[in-house]
Amino acid sequence: MFVKRTDLALEARELWQESAERTTRLMGVKATKRKLEGYPVTRVDILDHRGEEALGKPQGSYFTIDLSAFWQRKTDFFERAVRAVGTELKALLPPEGSALVVGLGNAAMTPDAVGPLALDSVLITRHLISAMPRQFAGFRPVSAFRAGVLGTTGVESAEAVRGLVAEVKPDMVLAIDALASRRRGRVCATVQLSDTGIIPGSGVGNHREALNRETLGVPVFALGIPTVVDAATLAADLLEESGVERVDEERLRDHGTFMVTTRDIDQQVRDLSKVVGYGINWALQDLEIEEINALLS
Amino acid sequence: MFVKRTDLALEARELWQESAERTTRLMGVKATKRKLEGYPVTRVDILDHRGEEALGKPQGSYFTIDLSAFWQRKTDFFERAVRAVGTELKALLPPEGSALVVGLGNAAMTPDAVGPLALDSVLITRHLISAMPRQFAGFRPVSAFRAGVLGTTGVESAEAVRGLVAEVKPDMVLAIDALASRRRGRVCATVQLSDTGIIPGSGVGNHREALNRETLGVPVFALGIPTVVDAATLAADLLEESGVERVDEERLRDHGTFMVTTRDIDQQVRDLSKVVGYGINWALQDLEIEEINALLS
Amino acid sequence: MFVKRTDLALEARELWQESAERTTRLMGVKATKRKLEGYPVTRVDILDHRGEEALGKPQGSYFTIDLSAFWQRKTDFFERAVRAVGTELKALLPPEGSALVVGLGNAAMTPDAVGPLALDSVLITRHLISAMPRQFAGFRPVSAFRAGVLGTTGVESAEAVRGLVAEVKPDMVLAIDALASRRRGRVCATVQLSDTGIIPGSGVGNHREALNRETLGVPVFALGIPTVVDAATLAADLLEESGVERVDEERLRDHGTFMVTTRDIDQQVRDLSKVVGYGINWALQDLEIEEINALLS
Amino acid sequence: MFVKRTDLALEARELWQESAERTTRLMGVKATKRKLEGYPVTRVDILDHRGEEALGKPQGSYFTIDLSAFWQRKTDFFERAVRAVGTELKALLPPEGSALVVGLGNAAMTPDAVGPLALDSVLITRHLISAMPRQFAGFRPVSAFRAGVLGTTGVESAEAVRGLVAEVKPDMVLAIDALASRRRGRVCATVQLSDTGIIPGSGVGNHREALNRETLGVPVFALGIPTVVDAATLAADLLEESGVERVDEERLRDHGTFMVTTRDIDQQVRDLSKVVGYGINWALQDLEIEEINALLS
Repeated sequence: MFVKRTDLALEARELWQESAERTTRLMGVKATKRKLEGYPVTRVDILDHRGEEALGKPQGSYFTIDLSAFWQRKTDFFERAVRAVGTELKALLPPEGSALVVGLGNAAMTPDAVGPLALDSVLITRHLISAMPRQFAGFRPVSAFRAGVLGTTGVESAEAVRGLVAEVKPDMVLAIDALASRRRGRVCATVQLSDTGIIPGSGVGNHREALNRETLGVPVFALGIPTVVDAATLAADLLEESGVERVDEERLRDHGTFMVTTRDIDQQVRDLSKVVGYGINWALQDLEIEEINALLS
Repeated sequence: MFVKRTDLALEARELWQESAERTTRLMGVKATKRKLEGYPVTRVDILDHRGEEALGKPQGSYFTIDLSAFWQRKTDFFERAVRAVGTELKALLPPEGSALVVGLGNAAMTPDAVGPLALDSVLITRHLISAMPRQFAGFRPVSAFRAGVLGTTGVESAEAVRGLVAEVKPDMVLAIDALASRRRGRVCATVQLSDTGIIPGSGVGNHREALNRETLGVPVFALGIPTVVDAATLAADLLEESGVERVDEERLRDHGTFMVTTRDIDQQVRDLSKVVGYGINWALQDLEIEEINALLS
Repeated sequence: MFVKRTDLALEARELWQESAERTTRLMGVKATKRKLEGYPVTRVDILDHRGEEALGKPQGSYFTIDLSAFWQRKTDFFERAVRAVGTELKALLPPEGSALVVGLGNAAMTPDAVGPLALDSVLITRHLISAMPRQFAGFRPVSAFRAGVLGTTGVESAEAVRGLVAEVKPDMVLAIDALASRRRGRVCATVQLSDTGIIPGSGVGNHREALNRETLGVPVFALGIPTVVDAATLAADLLEESGVERVDEERLRDHGTFMVTTRDIDQQVRDLSKVVGYGINWALQDLEIEEINALLS
Repeated sequence: MFVKRTDLALEARELWQESAERTTRLMGVKATKRKLEGYPVTRVDILDHRGEEALGKPQGSYFTIDLSAFWQRKTDFFERAVRAVGTELKALLPPEGSALVVGLGNAAMTPDAVGPLALDSVLITRHLISAMPRQFAGFRPVSAFRAGVLGTTGVESAEAVRGLVAEVKPDMVLAIDALASRRRGRVCATVQLSDTGIIPGSGVGNHREALNRETLGVPVFALGIPTVVDAATLAADLLEESGVERVDEERLRDHGTFMVTTRDIDQQVRDLSKVVGYGINWALQDLEIEEINALLS
């Protein structure tokens, strides 16, 4: 059977529902919807092993914030998007403690550059607190790591982060990465937050060792932005919608090394990465957007 | 009817043949095949108005060099690809005279960056010949123009090039641009040369005023590399292959703002742009690849 | 005699005063000082041929805005710097008409990148007005040109701009460039405006054909930021201050291919270029800073 | 007393000799000269505590390769420079074992970008050997780390490298950094190799925790390229040469935040960084330059 690719728990649940008999109930998974700053938020909780097996993702909570409206570029959209991501993330994170923020992915390849780009908007405070503890008493210690790509480091991201965690001893890790969606409409239009850790490189192909509490020893929160659709998944969806019964798997896999993305990917990835970076500052440091602006300049 | 998008004359001919009744003959078009340095070269000549109408492209000769084998990275592939492109281009160009090489497209957006990237490998000699005529007696005068994007210049590429041509007075213009193919297999795997001029921006969407002998007053040769497939065209092809008779146009157009491209687009565009740049030096200056290397360093 | 290098009229006047006998009066030059938004502004008017000869610069008005205080990073410094530059520029420019903004210099070499960087913050409106005349009725038409470097274009900036002016027919040209100062304290801390045109490349060495009303046929306004000190000039100043009478010219010229610049040149050039870009929008389009932010995003 | 700044052992020795009475002998330091591939190589051995105190550098061997001739751009200069650096480095390194190559400095600031740029030319093999041990049997395992800048990571380079060394367990560390010279003539014209470790950030100012056998637990070899002259050091030298006896320290320190560098720093740093990267491959992997070219493409 052809396996459609998605990194969104929301879509894994959709796929299960599409494939399953109507009589079956999806056990071990709970989904709820609400609105935040005008943006729809879907929460999918994977509660136990039945849920894990059905959706192919680890137990935990996944929040998908639908920012499609962001691109209408109304006056205060950036602020509202930051508040939505920041509020949701703040509720997910421990209320105290230091954080190491890891940017996964390849800075030189736009659809994979979400991680390193978001880091450019994260306030780095660990060294300042250490040098001027009195002046920076109000901040939580934040450090950052740009994990790079295996081909240019020779080191798995999980290995490198583990080494850094042992030295820096953060209370939590936040990992930012590009994701793959199955729907063009979600590309560069949604943010997924979760408390389950992350497998680097999902968005652009090569799966690697996971970053999670088991491999790193501290809780790992993931922030992801879908930037691509796997071309084979898109094709399979399209054929099914058109009533084609037997999809030729071989033929679809031929699309596997291609990806579908938006024409204005560069600007969109840049803008949404900034939303994620600011959202992290909002959640960790309790700062207004103008204060973040001033501190980053 | 849904109109499939391609910038390759080769594919425009394929599309005509697929759509036309088998009994119809394509008039005013001639196609021939041969090999050059081991790479297949297809030549499509559009001979008259019947050919222009059938293929939707201006009269002239179009050469498509299939470099798929390039990516097997055998020892001398770069050299052979340069010789193939250079030899074909040399046969197309006037044997003497100065050239203005125009790089079309957006340097900040990889699938559109073929033009500006190729220029980085073109030997610029006009100012050297003018300053040291004796030492550079053996070179043809070459100047370059990075046309930029309408949104960041406010000026159409054709306007700007026309102004420059009036000052620089080159004997010919060579225009380099990214193209759209209908086949994933041709993305970052082929080079199209033609003596017909070019409409900027074809590869990534917005059609603009043409660069050709009519608009510029000198012959315009086009060098293009397909870097994307229009997502709607890909979808239409896929549905037809699967026997879906009625393709919903509305539904397909929804893909229109998306594009399909390879995962390693950055490296591939960089490498092929260098092949095109070196091919231009080969064709214009009669230099060996090692000599080009030395002059560019 | 060793000739100290500066592109600032302010400093050319200082140098004259230092070299001249106290009994001599500088004829044909008038200088005045005032404050704008808290920043000191010096105006030097070169009134006639005596002034031109004494200062080695063409007749016209030169305004130097001292933004040293900018780097103290108080809350509203960016806004105040933009208002200072914008107000001064607005008084200098014709109250109506279209503008072509030319960014001179090498984008790949930070101390020379002022021109291309400032253009990233200039609102480009010509194509929008042309496409949607009703919606953009309130804007003046602005287009932009990144002139590039002779070695990568083969074309003198003045030639290329002349060609573009013939096509685009702007009512004025604004040219932005990096300058050389004689004082470290002015590096990345001042902006010079003038109505006299400009000679490209002053800041980093190679003098070329001027951009001015004579060569382009329309008034040319120059905006410059000093980013380097010529190493030989710095050395000569230093020796004179220390009472060394006979400065060995040969020895100083050895410094000529070196330049003195700040350690954090990258950030400073980026920030001041943005001030210049915003100042241009302020002067041309009568917009508040928040409106510029919204339009540029 | 004004302390002149240099990161070159060669110059520290020169400074000692200039300052010391002629009757004093420099104890604990040995210097020898020879030629390699036509380039002069100076070896300074600091033998004991007397040498350490006199030169202000740790015990060990320092090799300075004078590549000034490199810029004459004769045909085979790149190859000869690589062979000179590679041969000298090979003699310094253990003949076997895995290496972690650390690029220190700020990729976004050219005079500080030597480390990250050189890494782009280093063959990364650790992951390949691990995935395909049979095919890559002939290679030594090499991994890489781009250390970044404290302000953007919050983590000292030494901390981060220590964490990585604990995970990757290399047999040696090679650290690449930009240096400060006291002589303009050595800027972008020399390479210093040593077996003593390195203090990050020397070249551009802020001294930090050392990378050496004590802090990392494995031998640390340093490769440095001088890219700047401290402006105060340059000024002090200049005044002394001119016979100024009392140099005003306050006045000179004012130059301290400025640096002197070449006009074509971007290209020179890029070229020399490539020499260093290739030299590392030559020393570690026993490859000819053409083989390195093929593997890096």
